[in-house]
Amino acid sequence: MIPDETTLQRLADLLVGFGANVQPGQIVAVSSELGKEPLTRAIAASAYRAGASYVEVTYSDAWVRRARLELGTDEALETVPPWVGERILALGEARAARIALSGVVAPHLLEDIDPARVGRDRSSTLREAGQVINARTTNWTIGPCPTLDWAQLVHPELDADAALAKLWAEIVRVCRLDEPDPVAAWQERMATLVAAAERLTAARFDALHFEGPGTDLTVGLLPTSRFIAAGFETVDGIRHAPNLPTEEVFTTPDPLRTEGVVRSTKPLRVGGATIRGLRVRFEGGRAVEFEAEQGAETLRAFSQQDEGAAHLGEVALVDREGRIGPLGTVFYDTLLDENAASHIALGNGFRFAVEEEDLGRVNQSVIHFDFMIGGDDVDVTGVTVAGERVPVLRGGAWQL
Amino acid sequence: MIPDETTLQRLADLLVGFGANVQPGQIVAVSSELGKEPLTRAIAASAYRAGASYVEVTYSDAWVRRARLELGTDEALETVPPWVGERILALGEARAARIALSGVVAPHLLEDIDPARVGRDRSSTLREAGQVINARTTNWTIGPCPTLDWAQLVHPELDADAALAKLWAEIVRVCRLDEPDPVAAWQERMATLVAAAERLTAARFDALHFEGPGTDLTVGLLPTSRFIAAGFETVDGIRHAPNLPTEEVFTTPDPLRTEGVVRSTKPLRVGGATIRGLRVRFEGGRAVEFEAEQGAETLRAFSQQDEGAAHLGEVALVDREGRIGPLGTVFYDTLLDENAASHIALGNGFRFAVEEEDLGRVNQSVIHFDFMIGGDDVDVTGVTVAGERVPVLRGGAWQL
Repeated sequence: MIPDETTLQRLADLLVGFGANVQPGQIVAVSSELGKEPLTRAIAASAYRAGASYVEVTYSDAWVRRARLELGTDEALETVPPWVGERILALGEARAARIALSGVVAPHLLEDIDPARVGRDRSSTLREAGQVINARTTNWTIGPCPTLDWAQLVHPELDADAALAKLWAEIVRVCRLDEPDPVAAWQERMATLVAAAERLTAARFDALHFEGPGTDLTVGLLPTSRFIAAGFETVDGIRHAPNLPTEEVFTTPDPLRTEGVVRSTKPLRVGGATIRGLRVRFEGGRAVEFEAEQGAETLRAFSQQDEGAAHLGEVALVDREGRIGPLGTVFYDTLLDENAASHIALGNGFRFAVEEEDLGRVNQSVIHFDFMIGGDDVDVTGVTVAGERVPVLRGGAWQL
Repeated sequence: MIPDETTLQRLADLLVGFGANVQPGQIVAVSSELGKEPLTRAIAASAYRAGASYVEVTYSDAWVRRARLELGTDEALETVPPWVGERILALGEARAARIALSGVVAPHLLEDIDPARVGRDRSSTLREAGQVINARTTNWTIGPCPTLDWAQLVHPELDADAALAKLWAEIVRVCRLDEPDPVAAWQERMATLVAAAERLTAARFDALHFEGPGTDLTVGLLPTSRFIAAGFETVDGIRHAPNLPTEEVFTTPDPLRTEGVVRSTKPLRVGGATIRGLRVRFEGGRAVEFEAEQGAETLRAFSQQDEGAAHLGEVALVDREGRIGPLGTVFYDTLLDENAASHIALGNGFRFAVEEEDLGRVNQSVIHFDFMIGGDDVDVTGVTVAGERVPVLRGGAWQL
């Protein structure tokens, strides 16, 4: 069996004990998907061992979603019952822990579905999810769950078992489960990221400038934009790691001051569709042009869900010391790919990344959609209010 | 593949179009379980074809439940987050349709778990489910979903494929899917059941007396207890068939006037445990003694969840003209077995089965637990207020 029980348990324990940092007596909500049963069950067991009062697993089913997209009325695409969002808010009120599993299932299932319908589907974008994150009332994490489907998407040159074994080995590597003490390894790496975030915040840049093949993009920052890395803390003081793995330093930018063009440096998946060769042009903060070799229509529909969906909510920097980039693997999964390279995100911003006076300027949207724009050949330069240019990343290495 | 796509689709369409009678624009909640994916997906597709605005599938996972029972704290066994019940009430407010799938998955998974813990688990008993049924705000149905696990439990003498094929053939038979027009066949059978129910109600019995091997039980009725069969109607006038298959005529009895002893005529499953050779003694309406060859402890714990759990909420009569009894198969699934033979249920009663003056006397409980007490060798006699004895069932045939 791939993986062995020990590896499964170690990943589950990392997500429960360190990622979400589940506390005794907490309700634990696990957001999973059919195809991810073994890790989901290991997480449930680990959470109960940690003293959880209730583990609520929700399995989504890609085939049920396909039925909606294929057969549902126009009304159906726009409908999400109110209790779906109310449950998310209730998780916050209950001070619950939340664990979500990324990783691909049935990657080709939506290929014959009208991309405009995929983009209009409201069921995968919940405003309440952003609200609870910003309220910092839940200790949460997102971690990867290898599946056979995903392994074959990422490593099509291998047979099924070999592909799954390779994907698991990569997940073990990037989650630092190959270290004798993974938590200590994460604490060390996180200290590096937190120090870089502090230096970036202290520099008080007015903007970040990205330059590379096909990319000349300036992302304006808010006066109080604060760079954040690795660890979050809830209002009750519970430390947690929202992403495992995490290699990024990020903040929320000024949604009205993005200018220029940017080329996505990795393929990505949105709502079940694959998008390749993406180029986006921004004017006055707004994404005004989307072009892609594949999947542009899905993305256009996705970015029209509300006004904020065409503006930036996040800018993130990733150095070359992380473990994901060096693998050279395209995972078609945002959790991993966004931690391989610097990226920006359309949609909802992070209210906890600014001071009170800028709260009204943070972007708001039902979507939050990351895409990778960085790499060793993309220079990142800080621009001060006075117009001074300060190198930030060169060849993937920190310059400040 | 067992079954073929056509059979799967016909069962899904029967549950959606006739059982729940899904209306265009309705939200449809499907309560399923891992192991029942193919029928669940066919139901989702059928519901969207019928114009559903949203199909919300909830998959429970027997292994996650096992983790709670095995590893959870005592607190965990008693904990159910408030939003689980609130969602059920919200389904009523939204006038949603509800479809649940019965059928066994992983029948031996809990065999090494302390039965007292299984009995104390609150997660499978929701007060709100009874409230919504009594409010008649949702059009709902429960139908059977054959699984390989279930087939091997029911037909252990056959190999896996043959067992699954036989179980499917039985389900096709009892769901009347072998008829050219299953809905017409159901309407004819239901007319027979409704006529029997009307004659029973008109007789205004004070009690029903069950006599057979090991059984001498008198079940007192309420003055306005009304016998019901087959079809329900919501407050908005949507007809639906709460159980498919259905062969029973039932009412809610006086919870304080059950006297005597009763022998269960079929094994049954409660909370994952199998109970065989059950004998129960009632005094003054209360179940005061449980004995069983297997599983008595689980049942005792189950019946101690609240005061109503030791009193009757239902008495139901099944004639020999139904399609389940003649198969001679023990299904270990209440939906099918309760429609094979007359039965009683401990726990929550049916408020819609009495007039207003008796509402305060209907039994209330978080549980509703049916067990079969009838058969061709069990006579059922109606007893009038004046003490007159009127034959009701002899050898499984209606006498009135």
